[in-house]
Amino acid sequence: MAGKKVLIIYAHQEPRSFNGSLKKVAVDELHKQGCTVTVSDLYAMDFEPRATRKDITGPLSNPKFFSYGVEAYEAFKKRSLTSDILDEQKKVQEADLVIFQFPLYWFSVPAILKGWMDRVLCQGFAFDIPGFYDSGFLKDKLALLSITTGGTAEMYAKTGVSGDFKYFLWPLQHGALHFCGFKVLAPQISFAPEFASEEERKAMVASWAQRLKTIWKEDPIPCTPSWYFGQ
Amino acid sequence: MAGKKVLIIYAHQEPRSFNGSLKKVAVDELHKQGCTVTVSDLYAMDFEPRATRKDITGPLSNPKFFSYGVEAYEAFKKRSLTSDILDEQKKVQEADLVIFQFPLYWFSVPAILKGWMDRVLCQGFAFDIPGFYDSGFLKDKLALLSITTGGTAEMYAKTGVSGDFKYFLWPLQHGALHFCGFKVLAPQISFAPEFASEEERKAMVASWAQRLKTIWKEDPIPCTPSWYFGQ
Repeated sequence: MAGKKVLIIYAHQEPRSFNGSLKKVAVDELHKQGCTVTVSDLYAMDFEPRATRKDITGPLSNPKFFSYGVEAYEAFKKRSLTSDILDEQKKVQEADLVIFQFPLYWFSVPAILKGWMDRVLCQGFAFDIPGFYDSGFLKDKLALLSITTGGTAEMYAKTGVSGDFKYFLWPLQHGALHFCGFKVLAPQISFAPEFASEEERKAMVASWAQRLKTIWKEDPIPCTPSWYFGQ
Repeated sequence: MAGKKVLIIYAHQEPRSFNGSLKKVAVDELHKQGCTVTVSDLYAMDFEPRATRKDITGPLSNPKFFSYGVEAYEAFKKRSLTSDILDEQKKVQEADLVIFQFPLYWFSVPAILKGWMDRVLCQGFAFDIPGFYDSGFLKDKLALLSITTGGTAEMYAKTGVSGDFKYFLWPLQHGALHFCGFKVLAPQISFAPEFASEEERKAMVASWAQRLKTIWKEDPIPCTPSWYFGQ
């Protein structure tokens, strides 16, 4: 939709990968709609995943006992977080929709993207206590996970060896995104592109592009355990 | 138990932290039993979390299209993985029990520990296709997550705002550890030490030390969705 701002957090090493294709069609389709699109290409940026003392540029609030959460919160308030974190926070702040494009590593995000979550979504910026879940600070924004898997859809069926794919979404969508207030759109899951034919891969890319045409009309998913676990 | 080998993967920045105390009592108690204990102190090692081209020291099997999973698998077979990965694999190979000691970040492990999982537990070393879940290559080993949380036990009750704590264990214990064949012992969860009194914190540390006294008699938990989701 014209005027909307989209941030794509992209975590794949190879530009010509299937993840790269999904990122590219998203950029193209959203541009076509008149959206402003920003991409954080984490590997190309060599994004730092480790949450350490280096993230705080000024003096520590307690130099004798380092608590990352406490220090990041204080540094956020004093604007003394390191610039790569501030840059990402600015991009998030401006976005109406944040799309995470990544291959599933161990039922979760690759470490480089986990580091983005650990460091960018700090207390004071994304949430406070109180000020989380429905009152998280990013509550006027949408988020969407676009994931490629190694395992097939059959493996990720409720009775499959890897269990329902919704099970692994819980920590990411509820524990991280919903905690920060994000309204979460249904995930886009491209199962096992490595085992698919060229034609099937093209169809998966096309269906993502097609979905994005009407993405602004979608309702968020319910943020309840029952969506995930059917209870 | 005398003669047993334990590897502790430890992910906290501050040696005097509560996580540091839990690590320390584990080392002390296991030494007392006559175990050999190795600690990978990930922040002190400045462990690399990013899965990149740099992990492969020799020529790539496909220099025109970088697939991390494929290249890591080939490099494992040719012994051309980078030395920090080989070092960790050697420690895992020798261990009877691997304990992961970390604070919960976004319902999961900190990025530095996620990177350890992404890079160390590669195909060929920890699993193959076929050769995963019950036939994963680490099937003669035990694993145990010792986790500290920010949220309270009430928040992590089934009807709490953060849902049952077992929900967030699924990707880690089933998707990563069980996939590699590990027999998973019950997690040690220390809820909200930051909000606890000094006395309560001491009791939590003591109960961990106490549990370790009989750890070798414990049976693994069942690796089924019903343990996690009660279905």
